Amino acid sequence: RAERVAHFEQDVWSIFTPLALECQAVNLGQGFMNFPPPDFVVEAAREAVTRNDCNQYSHPKGRPRLRNALAKSYGPLFNRTLDPETEVVVTAGANEGIFSIFAGYLDQGSEVILMEPFFDQYISNITMNGGVPVYCPIRPTGNSTKDMPASEWKIDIKELESKITPRSKIIVLNTPHNPIGKVFSREELEEIGALATKHNLLIISDEVYDRLYFDPMKHHRIATLDGLWERTITVGSGGKTFGTTGWRIGWLIGPKALVEPALAAHTRIVFCVNSPLQEAIAIGFEQADERGFFGSQIKAYEHKREKLLNVFRELGLPCTIPEGSYFILVNTDRIQVPEDYKFPDLLWKRPKDFRTCYWLTKEIGVCAIPPTEFYSKPNQSLAENFARFAFCKTDETLDAAAERLLKLK
Amino acid sequence: RAERVAHFEQDVWSIFTPLALECQAVNLGQGFMNFPPPDFVVEAAREAVTRNDCNQYSHPKGRPRLRNALAKSYGPLFNRTLDPETEVVVTAGANEGIFSIFAGYLDQGSEVILMEPFFDQYISNITMNGGVPVYCPIRPTGNSTKDMPASEWKIDIKELESKITPRSKIIVLNTPHNPIGKVFSREELEEIGALATKHNLLIISDEVYDRLYFDPMKHHRIATLDGLWERTITVGSGGKTFGTTGWRIGWLIGPKALVEPALAAHTRIVFCVNSPLQEAIAIGFEQADERGFFGSQIKAYEHKREKLLNVFRELGLPCTIPEGSYFILVNTDRIQVPEDYKFPDLLWKRPKDFRTCYWLTKEIGVCAIPPTEFYSKPNQSLAENFARFAFCKTDETLDAAAERLLKLK
Ligand SMILES: CSCCC(=O)C(=O)O
Ligand SMILES: CSCCC(=O)C(=O)O
Repeated sequence: RAERVAHFEQDVWSIFTPLALECQAVNLGQGFMNFPPPDFVVEAAREAVTRNDCNQYSHPKGRPRLRNALAKSYGPLFNRTLDPETEVVVTAGANEGIFSIFAGYLDQGSEVILMEPFFDQYISNITMNGGVPVYCPIRPTGNSTKDMPASEWKIDIKELESKITPRSKIIVLNTPHNPIGKVFSREELEEIGALATKHNLLIISDEVYDRLYFDPMKHHRIATLDGLWERTITVGSGGKTFGTTGWRIGWLIGPKALVEPALAAHTRIVFCVNSPLQEAIAIGFEQADERGFFGSQIKAYEHKREKLLNVFRELGLPCTIPEGSYFILVNTDRIQVPEDYKFPDLLWKRPKDFRTCYWLTKEIGVCAIPPTEFYSKPNQSLAENFARFAFCKTDETLDAAAERLLKLK
Repeated sequence: RAERVAHFEQDVWSIFTPLALECQAVNLGQGFMNFPPPDFVVEAAREAVTRNDCNQYSHPKGRPRLRNALAKSYGPLFNRTLDPETEVVVTAGANEGIFSIFAGYLDQGSEVILMEPFFDQYISNITMNGGVPVYCPIRPTGNSTKDMPASEWKIDIKELESKITPRSKIIVLNTPHNPIGKVFSREELEEIGALATKHNLLIISDEVYDRLYFDPMKHHRIATLDGLWERTITVGSGGKTFGTTGWRIGWLIGPKALVEPALAAHTRIVFCVNSPLQEAIAIGFEQADERGFFGSQIKAYEHKREKLLNVFRELGLPCTIPEGSYFILVNTDRIQVPEDYKFPDLLWKRPKDFRTCYWLTKEIGVCAIPPTEFYSKPNQSLAENFARFAFCKTDETLDAAAERLLKLK
């Protein structure tokens, strides 16, 4: 067993997704949809597998049709003409795309600045490639005994700058944010961008929830800010965009010179991405606008957000009001887990929120994710009294969860 | 750009596949099928994308249905009951599976013994994970001016042992072999296995062509030999097995303790594998036997092999007679490339076979792969006078290739 995998603990997904199944809990844990992708995307996949060119290797960069569709859909969002030949790379999910960026850029001891909380896979993706994660907290600045608009979670830009050293190579931004639901303001992005420029950092902008925000006026892309295209790789996700988390289609968008090292790594790691589902996602983008898909998807999520927020309001549990993504962080202080409850040994080695979420799954019948998974060890105490609930679920599922959660009253 | 990707040259696939397309050449280069996968597998994929549980994340280990089907299909081949929970891991193609094994096992300076020629991606997969490839040649022992049965390509077991050092951790075996077409004999496997045992090496047995051999009596699996299950991870490929190279479904089979480090790495690199095509491959295995699929596939390949061999016989070009896989290595000594032919600059930096294959693609209209790609720099001269042709193509394509190649007469 190599050093690079020696310290891995079991990931939170492999604990809670099987547990939810086993307990027949309503699963608001892992962020996947339990409703079907849009018909026109499913139909495109059904058709693609009947075309033999869609069943064989694609180019490592991705299928031309998908790269073209991405360039066309994203060009206007980036205020530029994107070159599908050199500025777009299709990856085996956003995860593999991010891994490949780290593989393409990090040397032993290279530092990566992360804002905390962070998507848990970042850490292993960095350390497996010899890098060292460096953390800067995003802190709730409002009154945490009441509702907390996600916009009130803030970084201190001075603190962020203090984390930068001569070994810093990359800063990772995630907006809309998992698990906070924060959509970074233009001002915040400008400040972060200025730091990156001053210290010559590559920006990875993880924008996998970029079609899921609730106020269009507040959504911005760091790569569109003055001078920042040149140092930013933006990461996107077919799974989040079209409700197909199991298709493993992601992408990187950025200047040729920036994406090239990631492409070099990606080509060796997976060679290429599955072809028929690339084709289907391409067709998804080709038809999304004429079908008004993204707008109606946002409306549906807005409704789901309200549904779930209302439960926590009724329970009097303070929670984050997300501006984007599909997660709600809930303060669980007032949830009473019986002192003498019998937890599996495994859970005593983990922070308190693992036990709260286990108990919620098992006894209340609603699965949530313990957010300490998204914090570095020293800061896990900040998250021990929270649980993360996902609302990318059918209305029926959310209603069933509501009914069960209201037993907590 | 990280050290680990700094020295990569453009891979042979990204050169020749686009070139073949551009020249409208008959493509016998990259090993993908230009005929459809079996109907029952395509139908299974069409059905899977309509089932929502098949459109969302799978478990990192792979979908239970596919792990069960693999355990059931492979169990008898390994003469044991395989535990689908712990002894089977589904990967994003065999390539990512192999990468993940290296990521899970190699530390800086760990050595990996490769037999040369080798599948080109091994090298980057090893070096990206801090490992050092060490080479032992497989040499043609017969009369190379005539047909060379692949079985006459041999390793010298003494020479192989001489490559082992205290830093050696892994030995990679590939049978049936790409590009030689050799199926290792039971005796050879026993010798290799004895070395691995003596020096406590992990064996990666890359058996992606394990359903494609022409003499069932001669096909063996190293993991079935006495005491070798305990130190072997066998790698398989849905793409090779069902003609779906673009679906990116591979797998690792081995004892729990051995596959675990690879699973730990795989979970971080790609998280999980695309779900609907896993389901389809599962159904492929469930139905393959009753449909006699593997047998009839072998018959079809046998016929294709003869078709292509006859071309080289007619041309008087000595070539390898493969016992498995779908490649033929052809001695190109007698092919006359005009001395004053204008090659792109790029090709002058590569060994001679790159130019021969370029010329064949462009001027004869048949694409082949330069096999020096499968050799370490110091040994590329051994392969400069060869070209690799693939016969995993329709009979019509092979006939068209024949017609064009016969112009060389
Ligand atoms: C690696 S699976 C995690 C899914 C997801 O994005 C989330 O739930 O945060
Ligand atoms: C990485 S694509 C190579 C396909 C293949 O297995 C081959 O042609 O050797």
